[in-house]
Amino acid sequence: MTKIKDLGEFGLIDRLSRNFKHRFSNTVLSLGDDCAAYSASPSKNQLVSTDALVEDIHFKLSTISAEQLGKKAIAVNISDIAAMGGTPTRILITLGISKKISAPFLDQLYKGIHKTCELYNIELFGGDTVSSPDCFFINVTIIGETKKGKLFTRKGAKKGDLIFTTGTLGDSSLGLYIQSKKKWKCSAKSKKYLLEKHLTPIPRLKESQLLARSTCKINSMIDISDGLVQDLHHICKQSGTGALIFEEKLPQSHAFSKVCSDNNLNPAPFILNGGEDYELLFTLPADGAKNLYRQFEKAEALVTHIGEITQPSEKVSLLKKNGKREILRQSSGFNHF
Amino acid sequence: MTKIKDLGEFGLIDRLSRNFKHRFSNTVLSLGDDCAAYSASPSKNQLVSTDALVEDIHFKLSTISAEQLGKKAIAVNISDIAAMGGTPTRILITLGISKKISAPFLDQLYKGIHKTCELYNIELFGGDTVSSPDCFFINVTIIGETKKGKLFTRKGAKKGDLIFTTGTLGDSSLGLYIQSKKKWKCSAKSKKYLLEKHLTPIPRLKESQLLARSTCKINSMIDISDGLVQDLHHICKQSGTGALIFEEKLPQSHAFSKVCSDNNLNPAPFILNGGEDYELLFTLPADGAKNLYRQFEKAEALVTHIGEITQPSEKVSLLKKNGKREILRQSSGFNHF
Repeated sequence: MTKIKDLGEFGLIDRLSRNFKHRFSNTVLSLGDDCAAYSASPSKNQLVSTDALVEDIHFKLSTISAEQLGKKAIAVNISDIAAMGGTPTRILITLGISKKISAPFLDQLYKGIHKTCELYNIELFGGDTVSSPDCFFINVTIIGETKKGKLFTRKGAKKGDLIFTTGTLGDSSLGLYIQSKKKWKCSAKSKKYLLEKHLTPIPRLKESQLLARSTCKINSMIDISDGLVQDLHHICKQSGTGALIFEEKLPQSHAFSKVCSDNNLNPAPFILNGGEDYELLFTLPADGAKNLYRQFEKAEALVTHIGEITQPSEKVSLLKKNGKREILRQSSGFNHF
Repeated sequence: MTKIKDLGEFGLIDRLSRNFKHRFSNTVLSLGDDCAAYSASPSKNQLVSTDALVEDIHFKLSTISAEQLGKKAIAVNISDIAAMGGTPTRILITLGISKKISAPFLDQLYKGIHKTCELYNIELFGGDTVSSPDCFFINVTIIGETKKGKLFTRKGAKKGDLIFTTGTLGDSSLGLYIQSKKKWKCSAKSKKYLLEKHLTPIPRLKESQLLARSTCKINSMIDISDGLVQDLHHICKQSGTGALIFEEKLPQSHAFSKVCSDNNLNPAPFILNGGEDYELLFTLPADGAKNLYRQFEKAEALVTHIGEITQPSEKVSLLKKNGKREILRQSSGFNHF
């Protein structure tokens, strides 16, 4: 008997959805990207995505405050809209409330949700409130929109495209790692920085909208939620390409580098596979790089050229600092099962 | 300290959502109805709703098959679209998968989901698949649409309106009740009928679309998910009216009447408060009744005049068969907490 564990998240989704053939003529994009999209008017696409956070799987109530959890639940959904070049507009929230959850906890959760909605101009649009026997969960459905012709997807990367990422990589997973043990050489400032990257990630909406407004020809885009390697595999699989990443170019924050070197930690696993960075990973033709740098510099936003799209036979590879190449394999998804 | 239990579902929702003021100018309807609605084009409203079913709260895996659960999860969401006079178009499904859930169970669940989607022409549009430590849950977000000017809401019932319901009432809750104990005087056929009404309810989409296409002036509508009394209170609260229900007119199925009388069960609690009927409850001016009956007769669909809208001071009342009036109080919502 096939086990869910063996299928992994992506195998399971493929298996369960394979019989669903019905598509409306105004469907622009269905399963398999950060959002699905449909056209409801001549000028705009409607985007929709849904994401759940479950207690003891995605968070522990002992290490994240209710307000932080509220902020994060919305931020990770905004990140899915950002990954498409969209603008978030509305959310629907389902709460699964277990016995230990109190009204003041929910007040704080909604304080975080409210702050994030205010910040990004999002309307609370609906939801469902149910009890849950054991664990607390929150499911967010987010709606957004893009202009027609400005929808960025995973599919479309071309051989020769340069690969870019916003921000820095590995901070969130290192934050989670050092949170779980006490004895690290780590300044209070570095710890605060890394923990905040994990607990209250900032969706790269500003950067996404910069790209959507610009004349940059974005061939593919995704947000890095499952880790750089995993998400780059998604782009390559859907685009039918390979990719080469340059180890020496992968952007690290000062706090990240210092904590790794002070504690003799190998930075590679955090940067490559850490997950929950919520940075944007995107590709564009090489002749667009100058324009891109100019735009990001003007907006005081960080962007780094980290690799290039190759032919599919080269798979997804890393050019290491020592000059050797290593193939970076895809896992079957962040394996919850 | 305020307890969630004391707030109830509706009090909790009011408390958590009160600070959210942001509304887009194209929002037609936000929190507080079966769906939220926004306008994305000159001719149509987009509808959205989300509903979760949680193991051991909404269902027990020992008493519903995976395929039935899949059908029901989609049907109850379609019912929310039907309650607005809408047409369902797309769904997004979040699965919270606990350890005891197997791949074949999910195959069967998706068989039920697929059948229902095929039947109602619904596109599987997205979702999320996560693990859950203890209980299985499924959250469905449904998207639909209505023509402008054909959006039926809870608000708008007027004094003198006649109150109608589709189908029959109480079957689902009686089905649940007799399922839990063995010794009932009940034919196999009646048992099957009542259980099916509980396990695989049929959303009243045909009837809803009949109303949307017709010239009937529907002043208010809701689907009966929490029970007749509860859902009638929703209409009256939002419309600023009272209502009077005639006990002798409340429609019962043959199986329901027979099982109640053979087992000396009082039918009233099932009919009035049972919940999960997923019939449509709606009001229209008295002069529209003839037209309504003609339309439903032509479509071979059941509709029953069960009461009338009164002034608010008369509250929600029942005119009993013995001629006495009884005020029907609202609970604080189907209290999960």
